[in-house]
Amino acid sequence: MNDDLYKAGLEVRREVLGSSYVDASLAAATDFSRDLQEYVTQYCWGDIWNREGLSHRDRSLINLAMLTALNRGHEFKAHVRGALNNGVTRGEIKEVLMQTAFYCGGPAALESFRLAAEVFDS
Amino acid sequence: MNDDLYKAGLEVRREVLGSSYVDASLAAATDFSRDLQEYVTQYCWGDIWNREGLSHRDRSLINLAMLTALNRGHEFKAHVRGALNNGVTRGEIKEVLMQTAFYCGGPAALESFRLAAEVFDS
Amino acid sequence: MNDDLYKAGLEVRREVLGSSYVDASLAAATDFSRDLQEYVTQYCWGDIWNREGLSHRDRSLINLAMLTALNRGHEFKAHVRGALNNGVTRGEIKEVLMQTAFYCGGPAALESFRLAAEVFDS
Amino acid sequence: MNDDLYKAGLEVRREVLGSSYVDASLAAATDFSRDLQEYVTQYCWGDIWNREGLSHRDRSLINLAMLTALNRGHEFKAHVRGALNNGVTRGEIKEVLMQTAFYCGGPAALESFRLAAEVFDS
Amino acid sequence: MNDDLYKAGLEVRREVLGSSYVDASLAAATDFSRDLQEYVTQYCWGDIWNREGLSHRDRSLINLAMLTALNRGHEFKAHVRGALNNGVTRGEIKEVLMQTAFYCGGPAALESFRLAAEVFDS
Amino acid sequence: MNDDLYKAGLEVRREVLGSSYVDASLAAATDFSRDLQEYVTQYCWGDIWNREGLSHRDRSLINLAMLTALNRGHEFKAHVRGALNNGVTRGEIKEVLMQTAFYCGGPAALESFRLAAEVFDS
Repeated sequence: MNDDLYKAGLEVRREVLGSSYVDASLAAATDFSRDLQEYVTQYCWGDIWNREGLSHRDRSLINLAMLTALNRGHEFKAHVRGALNNGVTRGEIKEVLMQTAFYCGGPAALESFRLAAEVFDS
Repeated sequence: MNDDLYKAGLEVRREVLGSSYVDASLAAATDFSRDLQEYVTQYCWGDIWNREGLSHRDRSLINLAMLTALNRGHEFKAHVRGALNNGVTRGEIKEVLMQTAFYCGGPAALESFRLAAEVFDS
Repeated sequence: MNDDLYKAGLEVRREVLGSSYVDASLAAATDFSRDLQEYVTQYCWGDIWNREGLSHRDRSLINLAMLTALNRGHEFKAHVRGALNNGVTRGEIKEVLMQTAFYCGGPAALESFRLAAEVFDS
Repeated sequence: MNDDLYKAGLEVRREVLGSSYVDASLAAATDFSRDLQEYVTQYCWGDIWNREGLSHRDRSLINLAMLTALNRGHEFKAHVRGALNNGVTRGEIKEVLMQTAFYCGGPAALESFRLAAEVFDS
Repeated sequence: MNDDLYKAGLEVRREVLGSSYVDASLAAATDFSRDLQEYVTQYCWGDIWNREGLSHRDRSLINLAMLTALNRGHEFKAHVRGALNNGVTRGEIKEVLMQTAFYCGGPAALESFRLAAEVFDS
Repeated sequence: MNDDLYKAGLEVRREVLGSSYVDASLAAATDFSRDLQEYVTQYCWGDIWNREGLSHRDRSLINLAMLTALNRGHEFKAHVRGALNNGVTRGEIKEVLMQTAFYCGGPAALESFRLAAEVFDS
């Protein structure tokens, strides 16, 4: 493991997803899942999210769109929270999801609207 | 058909994809394909792209990410051109695609980098 | 919004999915989700489902196949109900899903059989 | 191999995709690909397509929708030919694809319209 | 139905997924779902899994990877159990899923790690 | 960039995909694509492929299955070459693809058989 990358990633991850969410993930890590946590923290958060050239707000927008297209509801919900933390408004989240209705199809958008509403209500 | 929506859509579509591209699409329309052209122009360009709350530049970013996730190379290339027309820089396109490498997987990102380079080279 | 298209769409949507289902959707609409409800009602139900050239029964058949391929269980279940309302028999639903077993793969068909059975049992 | 199922499958396959297409597939079979040809002929054509309860015309409709959703252009084109052989009109093919525009998303429909037009033009 | 293929398939299916799981599936079969059970038992278990040239252990490895890519959680969990029955270790399951993190993307891997842990805990 | 990880990755990548293929990729790298090449070389080849617990031969098998499911033909072909370099036989490649016929669906398998045959013929 690259300790610097991991440490940098952990910091961004806390900032975006919230410290309580990240603490829960770390506490839940087992011998089985620990390697994946390190992989994600280093390469996604430490590398990609730390890159210059695109703001965290922009990265949140494209994640909401991608995770809708990929049909990955669990991560989508985490990134709705992340988007709010990164300053994306509910109105902007609505706009991203309206656009998925055309490109990914209606059923994909309906599902993401439902999941986003669950996050807002919690 | 809703003529106002169609007309508004045609205008945005020309602005984003370029008049020559749109003229070619319209000229190629047949009895078979005309209804789809009208569907796309009205509902995608006339409605979604004309909505407030998200800039055209932001809409281009999320399209590049979605079309990579959806594995739709032909539309992806059209929207690389659209992104450039909307003021997205090559550096920002690179950032979006780097982010797809983690979320959509390496093979998806490799394909989109190849397709984007083809657009840049043409 | 195009009121005529919306009104026409609402009528078809009630006919296919049932008035109680549609009333529940409308009652649940919020500032966040209302635009999508209008998008779906106008363009999907008011436009596509109102087109001539293919019966509602045929449109139900292809929806069951598409929603299985797209892995969208929530909408799939709504359209199992819709198919029954459109005169598709349980035997025909079985046939569509048997065909998905070859084209979409066994796991997709197994999931859709499970979800359809849940609808039949409710 | 189950010879009866294979023989029955070959007959349906010829009827739907055309004898020249099937002859070309069989002639091209190698030690590498022969098992798959037998798998497809027996289980897809001999079993699924020979089942009662849904006409060949209906099976063609749902295949066009599924293959669009699955993003499998090569098989999609073969089944556009098959649909025409099974009595599906070009107008009905258009209707199926218009419906994919909403459910599978615009880019999926645009691709299938392009591929279907290539078949019509050949 | 081909009785020999069905019988052979049932045997492999019991061996891989466990007799209690298979008995439950058979007992739950209805007029609606029985044909699919027979399709799966004959063609998947009786044919594919009975083929020589790849061990059951190898077939389990590739199933875990495919089912992650296909986003089919229910079947994925059944095949985690199957993999353990076929002698795949938890460490090897971890390795397959780590590899999906790069090729299928992080969200796909995170979901499969969660589902596999649920199987281990039960 | 982590130089050690990059160097280790380059070595494995050469071993699996062949030095001429990798040299061509490196020579073709531009300011636009270089970051992705480094991302892939470090995290996929330097990290995942260098992990213990699964042989390169096993990793090749699951890649063929995943890339079929993901519908990524370009990478699939590169990994057919990689599989042969890692000692996977043509017969084993056939077995993996036969298994995709059931799980990913017939059209996916047909495409991968075609692409693998192109690699064998070249």
